Amino acid sequence: MPLALYTVILTQIHSSNKVVQIFGTINMSVYSSQRIALIGLGTIGISMAALHLSRESNIVDVFDTRPDFEQYIHKTLPIYMSELPSPNTDPRSSPESQPSTSLVASLVSSGRLRIHSTLESACASATIVQEQGPENVDWKQTTWTRIEAVAPSSAHFWTSTSGIAASIQQAKMQDKSRLLVVHPFNPPNIMPLLEIVPAPETSAERVEFAREYFSLPGSRHRPVVIRKEIPGFVGNRLAFALLREACYLVQEDVVDAKDLDTILMASLGPRWAGNGVFESYQYGGGEGGISSFLNKLGGTMQTIWDGQGRINVEGDERTEWKEKVIAQVNEAYGTVSAEQIQIKEARLKDIIGIQMKDYNRHGPEV
Amino acid sequence: MPLALYTVILTQIHSSNKVVQIFGTINMSVYSSQRIALIGLGTIGISMAALHLSRESNIVDVFDTRPDFEQYIHKTLPIYMSELPSPNTDPRSSPESQPSTSLVASLVSSGRLRIHSTLESACASATIVQEQGPENVDWKQTTWTRIEAVAPSSAHFWTSTSGIAASIQQAKMQDKSRLLVVHPFNPPNIMPLLEIVPAPETSAERVEFAREYFSLPGSRHRPVVIRKEIPGFVGNRLAFALLREACYLVQEDVVDAKDLDTILMASLGPRWAGNGVFESYQYGGGEGGISSFLNKLGGTMQTIWDGQGRINVEGDERTEWKEKVIAQVNEAYGTVSAEQIQIKEARLKDIIGIQMKDYNRHGPEV
Repeated sequence: MPLALYTVILTQIHSSNKVVQIFGTINMSVYSSQRIALIGLGTIGISMAALHLSRESNIVDVFDTRPDFEQYIHKTLPIYMSELPSPNTDPRSSPESQPSTSLVASLVSSGRLRIHSTLESACASATIVQEQGPENVDWKQTTWTRIEAVAPSSAHFWTSTSGIAASIQQAKMQDKSRLLVVHPFNPPNIMPLLEIVPAPETSAERVEFAREYFSLPGSRHRPVVIRKEIPGFVGNRLAFALLREACYLVQEDVVDAKDLDTILMASLGPRWAGNGVFESYQYGGGEGGISSFLNKLGGTMQTIWDGQGRINVEGDERTEWKEKVIAQVNEAYGTVSAEQIQIKEARLKDIIGIQMKDYNRHGPEV
Repeated sequence: MPLALYTVILTQIHSSNKVVQIFGTINMSVYSSQRIALIGLGTIGISMAALHLSRESNIVDVFDTRPDFEQYIHKTLPIYMSELPSPNTDPRSSPESQPSTSLVASLVSSGRLRIHSTLESACASATIVQEQGPENVDWKQTTWTRIEAVAPSSAHFWTSTSGIAASIQQAKMQDKSRLLVVHPFNPPNIMPLLEIVPAPETSAERVEFAREYFSLPGSRHRPVVIRKEIPGFVGNRLAFALLREACYLVQEDVVDAKDLDTILMASLGPRWAGNGVFESYQYGGGEGGISSFLNKLGGTMQTIWDGQGRINVEGDERTEWKEKVIAQVNEAYGTVSAEQIQIKEARLKDIIGIQMKDYNRHGPEV
């Protein structure tokens, strides 16, 4: 059954409160248990392992080339699993509790977590293969041909790359319809965003499967499908557009790096955490919404757009800002300590928690 | 006594727990009671009135040309005064309580709030004159000459403009050293940012006075001094840089407006509410900080910078995105209801509340 049709029927079943089981096993269903092979267990990989394992019917196979891999998994995975949100509990309320290393032993002995010494054995029974390996075109292309040779033909292929499009990674694959990008945001254990970026040859059903998988009830993720491959996808394009102007303003001595951060934290950060940029201007435009806003502020906007700093980060021209920005940022923040990161992450989690809060006494979140 | 010297001494007194009064009255001191004349009582003016009145020793004189001015003040000011944060209370916990209109009557009868029918009488005894009038060069220039003619010669002149630099507004003034921009961010009753933007002729003491006034203990504001006049100051330059790329991505069908907002809310918004952009990349760069980040991501950044959308908002070229963006934003959000705004503002306040929270068990906020 095509997934789209399945989705329509399932929605009808849900809305009429009947049970899902009448369909029996639907292999493509995100509601079935999955067997996920993770290739590359850096921060993103470990964070994904914790996520997949949090769904009790899943089995997770892991492979990484690091020599201390098994020991590393035993030590690191419990930290990320303990960080998964559970309603109404504050992980900082029992700061002294240490994650149990026996958690991994118990996952392994129950067969839910399987630690492999070859990529081939990790992928042999997968319904999903997800890679977080090096950002290197040759490595990605070769690895996907190796994976394709051993994984079941129905398995979905996901890459967590931030920069190498699926259409490039899939160059040497037989069936190019299987691969798509699932790009998380740092820190991946906290940030809800996943950018799902198919290549032109990726099948629509496989895109929808990934989107639904990360949208299941209880998921802390917010997957968004990007319609076209473009360098930086959407999140980093927006971030780097702002960063370019920020570096230009520091270069021009309009503001120093730390004051610019204060400005962002005291205005745009909270605004965009509470609403998107378009929603904010729809509100800011009064009764006419964003249309009024563009009419009213159009002159100022055009002046600012015409005057944007066209600095560069590579090459020899207009790169003189780098030294100043790096010096000011190092002076303002120095080397980051583990404790500072913990504090920042706790704050970030609280901000995202606010986003999940229901402020509407009369119905669902608006 | 120069304010800078005063500040140094005062800091020493504070740190040695002695009393401030030994200095007697220092006219330039932000710690003295102020008499603030507010010209123009729209949203920003009312919000500023509430702020100034929250300091019990201040007297606030208000003037606006609207015909129902007195009635409007009685109705509107209590709403903004009730919104001023008081520690450990949640204003939504008693949602049915209505702000008392007798509050204004009591402020008036005690002499702390004075409602004027002429600009001249409002400014006659001011230590600070702050204008939130129309964004019109002629109006601003004429109004400042009228104000200068009647206000005491020591009074500070502040303009809440978002677009007309102090150097332009002061063109017809006798003493150009008195005027500077104090630019708040929407919604002004919630957003902590104030961009303080002096003209080249504004005196350093007057800049420092404004910065200190909004930094006094208990202030919910975070003033930042911008070193050079530039269109859009810093906040709107950063916002419009991101907005330009956002509109370009919608125009190119990479993502629709609502999904772009989801991306921002699920990643960059919370990141920049928790940390500034430079601090984030200092953390994201690992041990080498932002320097490592720029080395590692430089290639991707340059590709994105080279490919940024150079769309326009005015003129005939590259403005075709407007129709699409407006249609998508209207479809996604429709007309904004008062209830939606309340919900959004409550969320925004909570996000800013998170920023004020102390996450550090061992010392002050880091």
